[in-house]
Amino acid sequence: MKKEFAVIGLGRFGGSICRALSEQGMEVMAIDNNEERVNQFAMIVSHAVVGDTTDEAVLKSLGIRNFDHVIVAIGDDIQSSILTTLILKELGVKNITVKAQNDYHEKVLLKIGADHVVHPERDMGKRIAHNIISNNVLDYLELSEEHSIVEIVASSKLDGHSLIDLDIRAKYGINIVAIKRQDDILVSPQANEVIRKGDILIVIGADLDINRFEKKVIQ
Amino acid sequence: MKKEFAVIGLGRFGGSICRALSEQGMEVMAIDNNEERVNQFAMIVSHAVVGDTTDEAVLKSLGIRNFDHVIVAIGDDIQSSILTTLILKELGVKNITVKAQNDYHEKVLLKIGADHVVHPERDMGKRIAHNIISNNVLDYLELSEEHSIVEIVASSKLDGHSLIDLDIRAKYGINIVAIKRQDDILVSPQANEVIRKGDILIVIGADLDINRFEKKVIQ
Ligand SMILES: Nc1ncnc2c1ncn2[C@@H]1O[C@H](COP(=O)(O)OP(=O)(O)OP(=O)(O)O)[C@@H](O)[C@H]1O
Ligand SMILES: Nc1ncnc2c1ncn2[C@@H]1O[C@H](COP(=O)(O)OP(=O)(O)OP(=O)(O)O)[C@@H](O)[C@H]1O
Ligand SMILES: [Ca+2]
Ligand SMILES: [Ca+2]
Ligand SMILES: [Ca+2]
Ligand SMILES: [Ca+2]
Repeated sequence: MKKEFAVIGLGRFGGSICRALSEQGMEVMAIDNNEERVNQFAMIVSHAVVGDTTDEAVLKSLGIRNFDHVIVAIGDDIQSSILTTLILKELGVKNITVKAQNDYHEKVLLKIGADHVVHPERDMGKRIAHNIISNNVLDYLELSEEHSIVEIVASSKLDGHSLIDLDIRAKYGINIVAIKRQDDILVSPQANEVIRKGDILIVIGADLDINRFEKKVIQ
Repeated sequence: MKKEFAVIGLGRFGGSICRALSEQGMEVMAIDNNEERVNQFAMIVSHAVVGDTTDEAVLKSLGIRNFDHVIVAIGDDIQSSILTTLILKELGVKNITVKAQNDYHEKVLLKIGADHVVHPERDMGKRIAHNIISNNVLDYLELSEEHSIVEIVASSKLDGHSLIDLDIRAKYGINIVAIKRQDDILVSPQANEVIRKGDILIVIGADLDINRFEKKVIQ
């Protein structure tokens, strides 16, 4: 059986969730009290509904209880976000993810039973700061406080050297798990693979070791 | 020499960038025309300044030209965001990242010379939708349209099986590049490593192959 999702609040955040879930073939009901916004999603999601979700009768009539996961993406109106979450919980929704505006909002949401609380602006700020610090790091995945996978652009310093030649694992304690070259992805590259300037190296290791390598690669 | 950053607009997004850059030991000047917000950052960043950045004289007097990277995190007031970006560009700032509210805003920003345009709410919506679809996928890094690195929770189905035993590479064409177990990270696990339920597998491969593996792991 297909999973069914409901997204409440069709701002940039909620709208983006609707689009991504629909693109993955999921059943999505999109709800907003703003009719214009709802109309924008009529062709994108399975059902687009105008409704005020702080009204218990509205949520009941939509059969909200039967959805596998409800995402509350109301932001600025903290009171509506909290009240909506409370009603969803009382109606027995099993999985509720809510967008929080601040720490106080988060605390209340967790107290009343939200399963996941997210801070899109804050988390994206962290990600972008990370990317900005080094122009050579394109993107990253934090594995733990001290370990990451990062995408690093190969500088001219690495150009023409093979992996065995550079001996990166022994010198820095990090591993190159893949190389992106134009549209190709080379997973688990061989030791004799030669790096070209502009290659994107997908590197795994301790943050300290990756930082040491980055510094070397940049200069 | 330390890199110097300026962040204009201290909402959740800009504020989070200030915090993350400062935590990494970077020099950060935080600017907002709201005095209250500026005061909140006085102890966090190197300099916190009250100022309207749509006023060229203000930006000039702050010596904005000398910063390595300026981030414009003004959101709702699109006109101020555009005007600020225009002035930064005219003053010769080399690296300008701007938060956009929508596609139209992005288009204008790129036309007037913004180097990077970001959509925090939209990008985070995409990320969270991805994580929500499968409860077993915790986080991911998109390598290309068709390749990703994802964190997958090992179910009881995998418990007690060694990597060689499961033959994941041959069966699914994917690689396990690391295993997270409690606070440990095992990079490039050996073939005889035995998976435990709850282990977090860091998997690299084509999305289609990863999806096949996920489905197998979940059921
Ligand atoms: N009680 C409610 N019932 C249904 N929808 C609501 C309710 N209150 C607010 N919304 C809707 O939630 C959506 C998101 O609200 P928010 O104030 O966060 O807007 P936004 O800033 O455009 O969102 P984003 O920050 O994701 O871009 C709006 O489209 C709004 O109409
Ligand atoms: N002309 C300006 N000069 C300086 N700061 C400005 C200017 N215009 C707006 N700002 C500041 O930019 C900050 C971010 O504006 P925005 O409207 O996006 O607020 P926000 O919704 O709190 O941000 P976020 O969505 O990141 O949480 C505000 O603190 C605002 O005072
Ligand atoms: Ca908002
Ligand atoms: Ca880290
Ligand atoms: Ca905002
Ligand atoms: Ca993808």
